[in-house]
Amino acid sequence: MTALSREDCIALDQADPLAPLREDFSLPQNMIYLDGNSLGAQPKASLLRAQQLITQEWGQDLITSWNKAGWFEMPSRLGNLLAPLIGAEQGEVVVTDSTSINLFKAIAAALQIQAQSTDHANRRVIVTERSNFPTDIYMAEGIMRWLDRGYRLQLIDSPEELETAINDDTALVMLTHVNYRSGYLHDMEAVTKLTHQRGALCIWDLAHSAGAVEVQLNQAQADFAVGCCYKYLNGGPGAPAFVWVPRRHQEQFNHPLSGWWGHAAPFAMAPSFTATVGIRRALCGTQPIVSLAMVECGLATFGKTSMNNIRKKSLALTDLFIALVEAQCAHHPVSLVTPREHQRRGSQVSFAHPHAYAVVQALIERGVVGDYREPSIMRFGFTPLYTRFVDVWDAAEILRDILDRQDYQIDLKRNAVT
Amino acid sequence: MTALSREDCIALDQADPLAPLREDFSLPQNMIYLDGNSLGAQPKASLLRAQQLITQEWGQDLITSWNKAGWFEMPSRLGNLLAPLIGAEQGEVVVTDSTSINLFKAIAAALQIQAQSTDHANRRVIVTERSNFPTDIYMAEGIMRWLDRGYRLQLIDSPEELETAINDDTALVMLTHVNYRSGYLHDMEAVTKLTHQRGALCIWDLAHSAGAVEVQLNQAQADFAVGCCYKYLNGGPGAPAFVWVPRRHQEQFNHPLSGWWGHAAPFAMAPSFTATVGIRRALCGTQPIVSLAMVECGLATFGKTSMNNIRKKSLALTDLFIALVEAQCAHHPVSLVTPREHQRRGSQVSFAHPHAYAVVQALIERGVVGDYREPSIMRFGFTPLYTRFVDVWDAAEILRDILDRQDYQIDLKRNAVT
Repeated sequence: MTALSREDCIALDQADPLAPLREDFSLPQNMIYLDGNSLGAQPKASLLRAQQLITQEWGQDLITSWNKAGWFEMPSRLGNLLAPLIGAEQGEVVVTDSTSINLFKAIAAALQIQAQSTDHANRRVIVTERSNFPTDIYMAEGIMRWLDRGYRLQLIDSPEELETAINDDTALVMLTHVNYRSGYLHDMEAVTKLTHQRGALCIWDLAHSAGAVEVQLNQAQADFAVGCCYKYLNGGPGAPAFVWVPRRHQEQFNHPLSGWWGHAAPFAMAPSFTATVGIRRALCGTQPIVSLAMVECGLATFGKTSMNNIRKKSLALTDLFIALVEAQCAHHPVSLVTPREHQRRGSQVSFAHPHAYAVVQALIERGVVGDYREPSIMRFGFTPLYTRFVDVWDAAEILRDILDRQDYQIDLKRNAVT
Repeated sequence: MTALSREDCIALDQADPLAPLREDFSLPQNMIYLDGNSLGAQPKASLLRAQQLITQEWGQDLITSWNKAGWFEMPSRLGNLLAPLIGAEQGEVVVTDSTSINLFKAIAAALQIQAQSTDHANRRVIVTERSNFPTDIYMAEGIMRWLDRGYRLQLIDSPEELETAINDDTALVMLTHVNYRSGYLHDMEAVTKLTHQRGALCIWDLAHSAGAVEVQLNQAQADFAVGCCYKYLNGGPGAPAFVWVPRRHQEQFNHPLSGWWGHAAPFAMAPSFTATVGIRRALCGTQPIVSLAMVECGLATFGKTSMNNIRKKSLALTDLFIALVEAQCAHHPVSLVTPREHQRRGSQVSFAHPHAYAVVQALIERGVVGDYREPSIMRFGFTPLYTRFVDVWDAAEILRDILDRQDYQIDLKRNAVT
């Protein structure tokens, strides 16, 4: 692998069946963008879609667009487009609100299901990872504090602890499928099975897996899932998120954000709430239509390939990056954080380095955009729809050059947002 | 007034200091749009803004736009732009999430403030109107059901009942300032005063008043407010909503939607939640940036005039419409639902008619776009930024003609969304 040349990478790109999909995106010149796991690139189609939506649907057709342009149905229509990417059925996904808010709905519903069950009513523990994306933990804290019924979090420090952590006190296991820092990929099927064996329910956050790795929610018998549309799904900055509720749980999916979009008859203006049947009960209020429409442009590219092809290329890209960096930067204090094992790796590669923040800034200066995550992680996301093998080569070369020449400012002050 | 002619209306438009602001909007030809209280018209600037955001900020600058283009600060920056329209101070408003979700935050925070107070801890009643916009009631129901601590709703049937309904059991009074159906405008200052005298807190929903009537939240000593940006504020379909928390309540503003955008150090990735100081603790997760940016284009036009001028023209427009319809349709079963008294009237006029739905459809066919609301209301919104006096004349004439000729289909089936 390390004997590979830049020319070999160009040849890999030429042979890559996904290579033409890069044309769907508008990418900056002279930039190697390895941060699609933070904000996905802009699909070219999104500009035309926004223009059409703003000038015609909003400007000319105005309120008729709620029906005529399908605005009102957009959360479920987009959910159905997204479903195949995560192993979900039609009528099980809506695109709506933010990941945090969807997680709130799922946690609230799951805790209620447990509280109302005969056998599990006294379970009071939510198991999650200390390294989970913080907002997931914060949302669980918010619910626990509000319910004030003795719920508590159990934060584990490694996936191996799940086996002992999940027990008769566990109401809920809440995990992010791919860790945002390390890129660790949980075995969804095994963890869900373990969770169910111990009588708990399992919520998966797919923020770093939807569109990045193969996800089979129904096959894994997962209970609930949420995820983000602005990372690997390229739905635009802050795009509305998604929530998945399998058919078997939909009737019990009750959450306190019971707004009119989740009502059985939203336009009857009845003075009391009756949840609608099906996945739309996960909706709350009116959705931001312009941002929502961008999500469809991101999903369109996925229709031209399969998650299996995407996953194959993702592993090839991350394998290559790991090999190149480890070979070329072996004399520097760079250590791989992301699992080497394919089955445990998402679509990112994280390396630790004592001056990670400064090195990431130097990389950005040189046109290689990854990002920094506390406390010492250089994080690189690989998005098979637009990342080329030659990009991987060049990024590794530039990283080596920066480290060899110590061409980074150690005292660099950290920005608020990296 | 009824002796007024179409020419007089044209003269009124020529003398109208707000007339030039109509040029800020892209409006359909041959349509009289009286539904800006459902979806505001499209500011011309929004197209360019979306193009810039999508191609440059998202497409080229990618993640750097969170800082460089001010995406992360957008909720508070827009909140500060909106503040003067509702009598709020800088640092008291954020534009975020949906009205329903913001209301959830405000209700939760208010109930907790009461529950933690020495004198009001046992108050368990939320007073609101049966005719309130349903989602407001549904959100209160959602919280009450979920907390399961004996909270209950008291639904009143007319504003006069407030005097007796608010008592020692009342934790919270939750009202929509301008009723979506009738256009009734509450006396915010008097109702808030009454509420406080009885030891309760008061939440105002400004969905139909922000940008439509003069609102003085701080002067009225209101406790919390939420509102909509896609009606009179012209922020685009489903635009993110706003929430107002006055400085005196901010330290106590705790709600269960405690996501990372409301954290004291959102990028420190701490594994437990600490609310930030100030209005940003009302935030939860990542916001839909493209839709959010549209809100600024809507607010820009308000900077060219004052709410006082807007209110004056609003009352002139609604006075004129009432007078014309009552004079010209006197022989039809049309009855005014909106208060005649200026101090009790929002920026809409609602008439009841036995075949309201069919008449509204006939009006739309003839290019006059109002809307229908259950059970028998024809609703017409007047937006002084782009509605002309001549539009009012023409709309009244067309309504008269339809009624005189019975040119509507009584059996028309109702659409899901009107």
